[in-house]
Amino acid sequence: MKIDVYGLLEKVRTQKPVIHHLTNWVTIYDCANIVKVFGASPVMAHAKEEVAEMSKIASALVLNIGTLTVDFVESMKIAAKSANEKGIPVILDVCGAGATKLRDEKCFELLDEVKINIIKGNSSEVARIAGENVQTKGVDAVAVEKNLIEIAKGLAKKRNCTVVITGKEDIICDGKKTLIVKNGHQMMSNIVGTGCMATSVIGTFAAVENDLAIASASGLCCFEIASEIAVKSSNGPGTFKEALYDSVFQLDKKTIEKMSKIEIL
Amino acid sequence: MKIDVYGLLEKVRTQKPVIHHLTNWVTIYDCANIVKVFGASPVMAHAKEEVAEMSKIASALVLNIGTLTVDFVESMKIAAKSANEKGIPVILDVCGAGATKLRDEKCFELLDEVKINIIKGNSSEVARIAGENVQTKGVDAVAVEKNLIEIAKGLAKKRNCTVVITGKEDIICDGKKTLIVKNGHQMMSNIVGTGCMATSVIGTFAAVENDLAIASASGLCCFEIASEIAVKSSNGPGTFKEALYDSVFQLDKKTIEKMSKIEIL
Amino acid sequence: MKIDVYGLLEKVRTQKPVIHHLTNWVTIYDCANIVKVFGASPVMAHAKEEVAEMSKIASALVLNIGTLTVDFVESMKIAAKSANEKGIPVILDVCGAGATKLRDEKCFELLDEVKINIIKGNSSEVARIAGENVQTKGVDAVAVEKNLIEIAKGLAKKRNCTVVITGKEDIICDGKKTLIVKNGHQMMSNIVGTGCMATSVIGTFAAVENDLAIASASGLCCFEIASEIAVKSSNGPGTFKEALYDSVFQLDKKTIEKMSKIEIL
Repeated sequence: MKIDVYGLLEKVRTQKPVIHHLTNWVTIYDCANIVKVFGASPVMAHAKEEVAEMSKIASALVLNIGTLTVDFVESMKIAAKSANEKGIPVILDVCGAGATKLRDEKCFELLDEVKINIIKGNSSEVARIAGENVQTKGVDAVAVEKNLIEIAKGLAKKRNCTVVITGKEDIICDGKKTLIVKNGHQMMSNIVGTGCMATSVIGTFAAVENDLAIASASGLCCFEIASEIAVKSSNGPGTFKEALYDSVFQLDKKTIEKMSKIEIL
Repeated sequence: MKIDVYGLLEKVRTQKPVIHHLTNWVTIYDCANIVKVFGASPVMAHAKEEVAEMSKIASALVLNIGTLTVDFVESMKIAAKSANEKGIPVILDVCGAGATKLRDEKCFELLDEVKINIIKGNSSEVARIAGENVQTKGVDAVAVEKNLIEIAKGLAKKRNCTVVITGKEDIICDGKKTLIVKNGHQMMSNIVGTGCMATSVIGTFAAVENDLAIASASGLCCFEIASEIAVKSSNGPGTFKEALYDSVFQLDKKTIEKMSKIEIL
Repeated sequence: MKIDVYGLLEKVRTQKPVIHHLTNWVTIYDCANIVKVFGASPVMAHAKEEVAEMSKIASALVLNIGTLTVDFVESMKIAAKSANEKGIPVILDVCGAGATKLRDEKCFELLDEVKINIIKGNSSEVARIAGENVQTKGVDAVAVEKNLIEIAKGLAKKRNCTVVITGKEDIICDGKKTLIVKNGHQMMSNIVGTGCMATSVIGTFAAVENDLAIASASGLCCFEIASEIAVKSSNGPGTFKEALYDSVFQLDKKTIEKMSKIEIL
């Protein structure tokens, strides 16, 4: 199997899909902007009176519980039901799962009440959603003892979805195949927002490719190649973040084919 | 008629007007920061208990429905009534009008229940508010068949206000005169936030100039000249955005007089 | 008394404390990112159902009323009570105090109902909270006639806490000793967010040092040294802000020891 990463990027740039978000208030700008810079069209809307209608004009729905409230999750459910009806992919970033009971409960409610097509988080967040007994520390990942690939595979089968665990190497599993993305740079973890942006990128690629594991891996691969390039033209986390947008915008076929490191297990 | 664009910029820098915003959660930082970098004083406050009082210490009120809720629009109405009483200009960015029923309804409620002095949006948003049958796609503009200047003029007369349609060329009409601003650069449309920032800039200039068409054109002209300069010292959308702030901060008389392209119809 | 500023920075980088925020929607990203770039772990959570639990896994709690609502302040109280129980420091940025009755009332409610360990604001905000009759103009400082050190000392004694007044020279007083930080650059006041970020930095240092006056002065000193360095490698407010993150990230012992200007009165 050969993954045509650049081909999917071209589809994003050509089709310019609308990506509807209900996300957190910390990184909402960066979620919108990364989608825009990839060439797609972000829309952020959370009023319960309009989310169903907005999801109907979108090609993917991104949910992120980073600054959740009970009401906000109700809006997520309405949006997700609308997305389910239309048949567009729903991506859930289980941001901060394991940190509080509310986060765990609301993730499980979402997973039980609507169809989530892609679950995305860091190692400890996803482990918690998979039923492992981990206590996360805020929104940063903590060590997980059990084999992460096994956790991803188990959760993917249990929830009949694609699972993405981001980290030094990203694990993507749809229950059958497992992909590993080995791109990226340590600098990404020195700033706030790269995790949330990655979820928005996954949503963007899921809008143009039905195989959600391939979509997720391709999106992460592009985003992380851009980060590798951005590090070279920046002096630290501040200039890195702006260079990251520049690099995403300039990604071309040659660069992607030369730098992409996706492994299929 | 000669428009003294730099003279108005000087007034902004000298008077440092307070610009009260009720805006969206995506671009709220950039709305505040562009006002600050222009030399004015932004304040963002939306609690219904304080908006009337905050508008009373402001020199302009900027409303933006980008991430509206029903409650949030109620706060907008309270703030706008207070602004109307004080006699300061109220600017409404009809962000995403046409995308959902809620957005259309709330725009019309605001226009019917309070005095809006400037309506601002992209072509499809303003067309919708003018009563044209356009379906917008999220928050990005779609093609509008009818003559945009006619739409602006009709809406300005109907609502007795100034109408601003941003795009490759910006159209500003107060029902009598029409101004066209031909500055700007395509790069502005590659990032999220320039539309919202433009509205905040219009509010900033409307705080120091009673002729709201001239205020709007002058503000847009400055902002867009800065974008033309910023493109030259940046490598893509990330570094462009930071350079845009630098360029706004450094705008001087000579540059503005050399680069401004405002046409009076 | 010799203050080991770099020693505290090292503690932040090594201990990576979790800093729980309930802050405003304007600068929330920058509050989180500055904490991250300093080497600590920010978490933003405001749902009343989870704030108590989140504060329990944190090492400091930062409250900022910049875009307060009545409900939001209720969440602050729940979080603060939990922080008080655990014994971690609670920092309150009285952002915009004096601008509206709501802001004053809610500050006083917080000060009366929970234990606030550090009160932080600009000169007019703190003066108002100390009972002076000043009318602030939005969120920017206005002139205060009375001696600021006396105001800080009086408030620190009255509320049994540490008081931080930021400005050209920062005043930090715990009721006994008074520290003056003379670092910083005028450019900081040309962008939105440096005040809020300063509060988050104070929270970060308060998480690793029990003497809250020393923690506050050390955090401000580091942040402001970084700003002095950032000005040199930037062209205006936009590039300055990104360079500020780079400079914070790169702060080392030699630089801090050479540049720090903390005076003990």
